[in-house]
Amino acid sequence: MKIKVIIPNSSREFRDEQADHRRSITSSGTQVDVVCLDRGPVSIECAADDVNAAPYMLDEIKKAEKEGYHAVTIDCAMDPSPRAVKEITRLPVVIGGEASRALALLLGDRFSVITVLPNTAKVIEANIVASGLESRCASVRSAEIPVLELNNYGKTKRRLLVEAKKAIQEDEAEVIVLGCTGMAKLAKELQSELGVPVVEPATAAIKIAEILVQMGLTQSKLSYPPPPKKEIK
Amino acid sequence: MKIKVIIPNSSREFRDEQADHRRSITSSGTQVDVVCLDRGPVSIECAADDVNAAPYMLDEIKKAEKEGYHAVTIDCAMDPSPRAVKEITRLPVVIGGEASRALALLLGDRFSVITVLPNTAKVIEANIVASGLESRCASVRSAEIPVLELNNYGKTKRRLLVEAKKAIQEDEAEVIVLGCTGMAKLAKELQSELGVPVVEPATAAIKIAEILVQMGLTQSKLSYPPPPKKEIK
Amino acid sequence: MKIKVIIPNSSREFRDEQADHRRSITSSGTQVDVVCLDRGPVSIECAADDVNAAPYMLDEIKKAEKEGYHAVTIDCAMDPSPRAVKEITRLPVVIGGEASRALALLLGDRFSVITVLPNTAKVIEANIVASGLESRCASVRSAEIPVLELNNYGKTKRRLLVEAKKAIQEDEAEVIVLGCTGMAKLAKELQSELGVPVVEPATAAIKIAEILVQMGLTQSKLSYPPPPKKEIK
Amino acid sequence: MKIKVIIPNSSREFRDEQADHRRSITSSGTQVDVVCLDRGPVSIECAADDVNAAPYMLDEIKKAEKEGYHAVTIDCAMDPSPRAVKEITRLPVVIGGEASRALALLLGDRFSVITVLPNTAKVIEANIVASGLESRCASVRSAEIPVLELNNYGKTKRRLLVEAKKAIQEDEAEVIVLGCTGMAKLAKELQSELGVPVVEPATAAIKIAEILVQMGLTQSKLSYPPPPKKEIK
Amino acid sequence: MKIKVIIPNSSREFRDEQADHRRSITSSGTQVDVVCLDRGPVSIECAADDVNAAPYMLDEIKKAEKEGYHAVTIDCAMDPSPRAVKEITRLPVVIGGEASRALALLLGDRFSVITVLPNTAKVIEANIVASGLESRCASVRSAEIPVLELNNYGKTKRRLLVEAKKAIQEDEAEVIVLGCTGMAKLAKELQSELGVPVVEPATAAIKIAEILVQMGLTQSKLSYPPPPKKEIK
Amino acid sequence: MKIKVIIPNSSREFRDEQADHRRSITSSGTQVDVVCLDRGPVSIECAADDVNAAPYMLDEIKKAEKEGYHAVTIDCAMDPSPRAVKEITRLPVVIGGEASRALALLLGDRFSVITVLPNTAKVIEANIVASGLESRCASVRSAEIPVLELNNYGKTKRRLLVEAKKAIQEDEAEVIVLGCTGMAKLAKELQSELGVPVVEPATAAIKIAEILVQMGLTQSKLSYPPPPKKEIK
Repeated sequence: MKIKVIIPNSSREFRDEQADHRRSITSSGTQVDVVCLDRGPVSIECAADDVNAAPYMLDEIKKAEKEGYHAVTIDCAMDPSPRAVKEITRLPVVIGGEASRALALLLGDRFSVITVLPNTAKVIEANIVASGLESRCASVRSAEIPVLELNNYGKTKRRLLVEAKKAIQEDEAEVIVLGCTGMAKLAKELQSELGVPVVEPATAAIKIAEILVQMGLTQSKLSYPPPPKKEIK
Repeated sequence: MKIKVIIPNSSREFRDEQADHRRSITSSGTQVDVVCLDRGPVSIECAADDVNAAPYMLDEIKKAEKEGYHAVTIDCAMDPSPRAVKEITRLPVVIGGEASRALALLLGDRFSVITVLPNTAKVIEANIVASGLESRCASVRSAEIPVLELNNYGKTKRRLLVEAKKAIQEDEAEVIVLGCTGMAKLAKELQSELGVPVVEPATAAIKIAEILVQMGLTQSKLSYPPPPKKEIK
Repeated sequence: MKIKVIIPNSSREFRDEQADHRRSITSSGTQVDVVCLDRGPVSIECAADDVNAAPYMLDEIKKAEKEGYHAVTIDCAMDPSPRAVKEITRLPVVIGGEASRALALLLGDRFSVITVLPNTAKVIEANIVASGLESRCASVRSAEIPVLELNNYGKTKRRLLVEAKKAIQEDEAEVIVLGCTGMAKLAKELQSELGVPVVEPATAAIKIAEILVQMGLTQSKLSYPPPPKKEIK
Repeated sequence: MKIKVIIPNSSREFRDEQADHRRSITSSGTQVDVVCLDRGPVSIECAADDVNAAPYMLDEIKKAEKEGYHAVTIDCAMDPSPRAVKEITRLPVVIGGEASRALALLLGDRFSVITVLPNTAKVIEANIVASGLESRCASVRSAEIPVLELNNYGKTKRRLLVEAKKAIQEDEAEVIVLGCTGMAKLAKELQSELGVPVVEPATAAIKIAEILVQMGLTQSKLSYPPPPKKEIK
Repeated sequence: MKIKVIIPNSSREFRDEQADHRRSITSSGTQVDVVCLDRGPVSIECAADDVNAAPYMLDEIKKAEKEGYHAVTIDCAMDPSPRAVKEITRLPVVIGGEASRALALLLGDRFSVITVLPNTAKVIEANIVASGLESRCASVRSAEIPVLELNNYGKTKRRLLVEAKKAIQEDEAEVIVLGCTGMAKLAKELQSELGVPVVEPATAAIKIAEILVQMGLTQSKLSYPPPPKKEIK
Repeated sequence: MKIKVIIPNSSREFRDEQADHRRSITSSGTQVDVVCLDRGPVSIECAADDVNAAPYMLDEIKKAEKEGYHAVTIDCAMDPSPRAVKEITRLPVVIGGEASRALALLLGDRFSVITVLPNTAKVIEANIVASGLESRCASVRSAEIPVLELNNYGKTKRRLLVEAKKAIQEDEAEVIVLGCTGMAKLAKELQSELGVPVVEPATAAIKIAEILVQMGLTQSKLSYPPPPKKEIK
């Protein structure tokens, strides 16, 4: 099985920082290729970033069919253009944020998401409402660290622990969902210190993509109908 | 007062068909300029169309500040990139779909939206859920007419009447909201034949934009924080 | 266009305090007449006050048709007898509280209402639930000032600022809605100090009434059917 | 124990038709007095009727304290002015509609209300939403019979059976709640023919009033604070 | 009328502690028999306890029909196996937790439940969500006292007062619901000290059972269909 | 990795019919052992069946830790005793129904479940409400075939197609979730004929169990605290 992991930003440094982790988590027999975008913003932290990245993200998805991939993951917890990515292909497209929340539902009654910036938190909150899961969400908190500074892992871990503990103690969260795929390498340590499940979205997306391919499943075309053909100037 | 009406597609024919109507509905003292996009899809009928149009739509919004406008309306009932358009400016941005639904709330308990295609209906449904108004929505129905064929007004009116009557009789709608700004010229006739309020989104957006300017209101920067500065490749 | 603004209490002092403001906010060409009730309670602060005022309020609405008005506003943020006022006339009736909340929906994800007394807060909360908007409401807070003491503007402003800041910081409000039309003259100052949109209900109602008349809209008779004819002893 | 049953209309014929039934359903040791209003509409079928009846209904409630009653029931399934009746007294006030729905919750997952007119149905629907029970309500249907014609029991029963069967078969109701206390005498026959529980609101209110008195319970003054003292002109 | 009160644990001491109270609250003419289980856990404090007790609880319910009872109450606020107990009999089965919450709905807008342990609180929260009442629930709090230590009434009362006051002041509860039938003897004192209604579940269940029998009501077989006949090994 | 698949009924015929399928769907390196219960009902079709099976199901879960399993699946779409199974162990426990619905969320906006009997449908509906997913559920339908007759595959397939098509056409389902693990062998054929995703719960549970083990995740002990130690008679 071949899975294409699309990081929807244009930062090669971020991609290089993440690629080994993504390849390390797949099952035997699965080939994972990690790409970022040629153009667009260097990180995705708000709705306007989504707009600026999405056309190039859709291009990478369309190419995936021709490249022979069996599934695509969108390696982002802010779920950029979540309906468009599923409209334009029959390949299963699994998105970081929603994949991580689907698993969180099975692990506890209420989850909190800890993300990078307040801007990002607002978009993730909106995604959670749009998916009808707000009764399961205790809070969305931001660690106040931009995506491209997450790799200062000592500081990042300290800030994530602060917010995750507040989520557990003040907001009654029972499961923590990481709100940026740039936090992936910290998931296990955080879980070990917090004593509650910590769900990592990049991993969740790849793992669920594998499942969907194995089960012969892809998104419903009744939910995500193929775009009507038309002129694009 | 100067309002910039942005039709987020690249069809000049559509713009020319609509511009007179938009100018005719403003109060005295308001100047309305109607623009469409230089690039992007010729109509907005699904989430992928939104992706392809949104960068150019954001460009027009950013220009509006320098051009001296007091408010912007997004002349579309599918509400493309509804968070991004409010993040990038301090000018009030009023979007067709959400403006029409805000008025519908004041006119009855349950509204139905009649839009162009099933693809469009799916996106409008998602917008309604995201705004927490699903308990007020009886249904979203499609008339099965592409945006650029709406100007065959005889056929369009017949199809809209069929779906609106089903919405009222089968879905218990009490107010009808038009689901495409290309239907604007038919609103009064439809209301007259249906006997229930028919809310037209392009008009709703312009009228509410006038109100917001008069009241000194614009979207909250706590809800729509300005995008963090960053490199865009 | 002629709009009748009905203040649903019997305090002429309150009416005189407010009338200039109401006339000042209309567009050119709109005549606004501000009336209060001949009988009933001198202020509307709880559900029992609504009961005692509502028969006289309905009388004023019924007279409005004969007096040649094009629309009526109920100049109260507690929304007294909100279904009855729309049942008994075909004129558009716009109510302060619900008009202000409709605008707030367009300005941010979550609003808080700051009203006069805990009694009033309970009724406003119930109105918000009844309208299906509770997911958009951060809180309803009371400033603990009776309606007829609001015109001690220094004290009122201080108390409103205290509660609005708590709403923003503790309840995560992003938009403030004033919860009594007697606070109208403070709206701009409050907005300026708080840095978030402050929506004033008397203005919201008049402005939306103007829109509805211009758009040819009035409440649906499917939602608010005319009362059956019957003997009233 | 003495319970005052207040029929909130001014029809003595209706009261006389109902009084025996109300007295027949109490437990031994409970005295039930059934009153109607001296003034106001002869039946309560819409929100405007509520407005016209409510001041006299509140008078009867206030008198009840002096008359030595232990509890009051509002003998109406449309729940007129449901907050005001609880604000003005420390006696437990139990209202027909909400009492019947509280019992229905214990008898099945989804109930339907069958009421008199579409006008009434709209108000009952609003009450159900305001009480947060809409997820338990399958539908509110009207039998299209005015209150004062319900005593044509043959016709009434036929019409109620038609609507109740539609509620069960089309709307998936599992419990039927009668939507007017004028239907009280038909409850047992209807239950017997329908094979599902049929909850009668006048009985529900009286029975629950007895319980509350026995348990020493009355409505919370945090929910229904006493009205502030004020001049009523 | 004969009501069988089933305490779904195997502690005779607990039963003996409670039985007098249960008999004391019935109306004249009602015979109440209080039983506990021969086998199963000595207290019900979590979902696993429910599993271990439920088969014996169902046995007692089935026997009740043959023993000539008119109704059964499940004397537990954690509502063990709430659907099964209603499936297996045509006798009305009234469960402590849900009965107490049905009454609480009539007494205020928001209730809090104060129960024994965090384990129990989690199950009660789930029951509240399952019944669609979460919008009416301010919080579920635990007093951190195991069921079988509740009869240390001095300590229990102090702990309940602490949590109930937090519920009122921090969570905005307006009504308190006791979350274990072992707290029954404290209800009146707690209400007197707290100044808000305190609803006791064992009493609520018995009182509502009496009502249902008097009204000829039992749970709908459309909601709780009789189990299909089958082999049980 | 070793996964224990617990079919919570006592029918060895059913187990033998299913075991090969379960083993066939695992990834290389995963050992799957399929057990049924020694005692309890031969099929699980209603809440009372759950009660009768659950003690033996818990026994099998407790044994799994000692037997060296890494995860347990409950091979049932009715989700028997869904909180208890997660309370009693630190091994990840994945339940058929909820696992299938978590995947369905990623594949479309609205799913319908097609199950065996109306009794089963009622319990599944309650599970969906309890998990806060009712806004994503179009309907739960029953094929009117008992579990132990499902292996008449020709008839079963015909009945499932009838109900699934109604779900799609009448209820607006976009994804179909099978409502009994006894339907597993038909999933692919059904998907092929229906043209929408068909999610099979036994497979979903096993696949997600594999993921959780690989990700080091198990249910949160804040959501499912370990049962307090106590005497069980």
